[in-house]
Amino acid sequence: MNEVSIINIGDELLLGQVVNTNASTMSKMLTGAGFDVANVTVVGDVREDIERSLDQAIPHSDIVLVTGGLGPTKDDITKKLICDYFHSELVESEVALENVKRIFASRGYELTPVNRAQALVPRCCEVLNNDLGTAPCMWIKHGDGILVSLPGVPFEMEWLMRNRVIPKLQEELHTDCIINKNILTQGIGESFLSDLIEPWELKLPECIRLAYLPSAGLTKLRLTARGRHEEADKLRKAVDEAVEGLYKIAGQYIVGEDCETLDELVHKTLIERHLTLATAESCTGGNIARLLTAQAGASAYFRGGVVAYSNEVKESLLGVRHETLAEHGAVSEETVREMAEGVRKRLGSDLAIATTGIAGPDGGTPEKPVGTVWIAVADASHTEARLLQFGANRRQQNIDRSTNQAFAMLIRLICQKH
Amino acid sequence: MNEVSIINIGDELLLGQVVNTNASTMSKMLTGAGFDVANVTVVGDVREDIERSLDQAIPHSDIVLVTGGLGPTKDDITKKLICDYFHSELVESEVALENVKRIFASRGYELTPVNRAQALVPRCCEVLNNDLGTAPCMWIKHGDGILVSLPGVPFEMEWLMRNRVIPKLQEELHTDCIINKNILTQGIGESFLSDLIEPWELKLPECIRLAYLPSAGLTKLRLTARGRHEEADKLRKAVDEAVEGLYKIAGQYIVGEDCETLDELVHKTLIERHLTLATAESCTGGNIARLLTAQAGASAYFRGGVVAYSNEVKESLLGVRHETLAEHGAVSEETVREMAEGVRKRLGSDLAIATTGIAGPDGGTPEKPVGTVWIAVADASHTEARLLQFGANRRQQNIDRSTNQAFAMLIRLICQKH
Repeated sequence: MNEVSIINIGDELLLGQVVNTNASTMSKMLTGAGFDVANVTVVGDVREDIERSLDQAIPHSDIVLVTGGLGPTKDDITKKLICDYFHSELVESEVALENVKRIFASRGYELTPVNRAQALVPRCCEVLNNDLGTAPCMWIKHGDGILVSLPGVPFEMEWLMRNRVIPKLQEELHTDCIINKNILTQGIGESFLSDLIEPWELKLPECIRLAYLPSAGLTKLRLTARGRHEEADKLRKAVDEAVEGLYKIAGQYIVGEDCETLDELVHKTLIERHLTLATAESCTGGNIARLLTAQAGASAYFRGGVVAYSNEVKESLLGVRHETLAEHGAVSEETVREMAEGVRKRLGSDLAIATTGIAGPDGGTPEKPVGTVWIAVADASHTEARLLQFGANRRQQNIDRSTNQAFAMLIRLICQKH
Repeated sequence: MNEVSIINIGDELLLGQVVNTNASTMSKMLTGAGFDVANVTVVGDVREDIERSLDQAIPHSDIVLVTGGLGPTKDDITKKLICDYFHSELVESEVALENVKRIFASRGYELTPVNRAQALVPRCCEVLNNDLGTAPCMWIKHGDGILVSLPGVPFEMEWLMRNRVIPKLQEELHTDCIINKNILTQGIGESFLSDLIEPWELKLPECIRLAYLPSAGLTKLRLTARGRHEEADKLRKAVDEAVEGLYKIAGQYIVGEDCETLDELVHKTLIERHLTLATAESCTGGNIARLLTAQAGASAYFRGGVVAYSNEVKESLLGVRHETLAEHGAVSEETVREMAEGVRKRLGSDLAIATTGIAGPDGGTPEKPVGTVWIAVADASHTEARLLQFGANRRQQNIDRSTNQAFAMLIRLICQKH
């Protein structure tokens, strides 16, 4: 079954100072490649604790992946410990030394003895080259299992997992062929979706597994087909047929495929279709703009946005009429429509998104309780507005749900009309 | 020493679908209350795996905290398992039942048998009432140790930790008195700060421990004083004196106290001083606005912002002059000053922040490489601009550092002049 144990080492993880994103990043990548993560253990930079975690993990897993503790400072003890654990000795690795030299040269620094020591590795290991950093990635075969030690720096770890560790694991362990397909659904709760697609799910071929991955207002369905590599074409065909069947039964809730998140889907769609966007955000407070602009290349389509957190700004920058605000209030269909149309015209974009609502915890009234949100999307000829009532959720949840709802409405508008 | 082991249960955590924020939240709270977290283990909803994690944690820790697996669905097996583990039996708890009834009544739902089963708990446990949800929190004393089982829903877990679990642990274990003090520093790297304050650090009294908590462009120093409860006043005085000494040696780098993050500090400061703010963001893309508006009460000071992702928007909404952009470019001192002054005037705020830069990975030139960022802060009489060169970091890191730099400059402006 190729069961994996992950051990993340670092005092900072036990102080709560840093969220352990390495565990989730690794788990996601491994699951996607057909491996089962059985457990994750986090320990500090303490020799006995690390040894105990190895003692516990190794007998129960085929693969143990260890992150952290590979830096040049004295806190970082993983390398020496792993060396002792496998009764090996530290030797200078030519591959690792070349890598350290290359990185220091590229930064214009001189190589100090402390940094040269980064090229020391246990004799029993194979070095997997770390193109992004000086800490080596070490692959150790032992008895029936494999142990890999990776640096804890997230982007180095992620690069090594993608380019070195997972391909080598797949090769050496002759793993199954895995085909993943993500389908993003929106506008239907997880349990209703589950009821709706049950007849389809029951007829899925045995090679396909279905997972529900819900997040704020969005449910991602992941189909995973698994089989021998010779069957790849057959598996791909089975997935395509399953997806086709899913569209027939739940097509109106499907907003996209092959993305992890709706902001990624919006980003790709706008670039592909050469459309531009502007945003007018009240209750989402800039969250929509920052999710899009966090992605490289957003300037190709994102003209800009207004965070209209006061009525004056809604009037002055977006051109919402004073009478509209006075008559209907800031949280109303009339206002959200004028916000979307105003920002689109003033920023000269093809499309616009607008949000206005009561994120909470305060500011609700009996008529417009916390969680009342109006969202609009607009193009040159049409504005679509929707009222949402999220109920008394927490503030961040209301912001996240409003954001996803706005992205889904935009995708629907684009697919219908552009 | 009151060593704690944390066990987080949930398949979703091993699929990488959800980042395990519970571990870091709990670790931070426990560390702050004087407990040492020795390890964190994550396992799926698998009986043998959970049992093994208990077998491993219990002998090595005084306190075991378990989250997850308490919902009414069949996946959730923690309660039955803990019951068996301690050779107890499930009984209906009056306290827990009252709580379930109260919550169902408040939501206007009827109590189903499935939900009534949530009031079943092991006879050997004490129920700690969960005000926010139907899953009970169970406290079990066994031999020399304590095991507490909490729901995995983050906001319920956090509330229970703060209001039930930590106070009870402190009471029963007669823990030390702990006084924490956070000092936020900015504008100096961790290692330079460490060199600068070394003489002060060496003279700290024995009851005080110092921790460095660095994040994007910001280093938080945490002083933790520890002693008997009768010594509380003495400890507090020692911390105050230490902080005074720190100001003498590194005062110019200190931007605030008693906050976790700079956005929290800005939020508090603006509310306290009755000042209003507007933002004009280019490279930070709305990140500054969304961090402020994520906090309840931001509408007291935040007028709004413009995400000026194109030159046209810088001109039309912020009033940056066409000649300025043509002569100096979008990433320049002249532009960032006009952005800050323009947004302040147009939105009628006391203060303004503006950012413009090249977040990367593309868009750099030899004169203005990726990581070149101009930041300005302005009030009615003064605009302060600064050039930052973050080097070729990743996009998100450049955004986060620019954001923190902007917050720090704003705090400095406020402290000097308002």
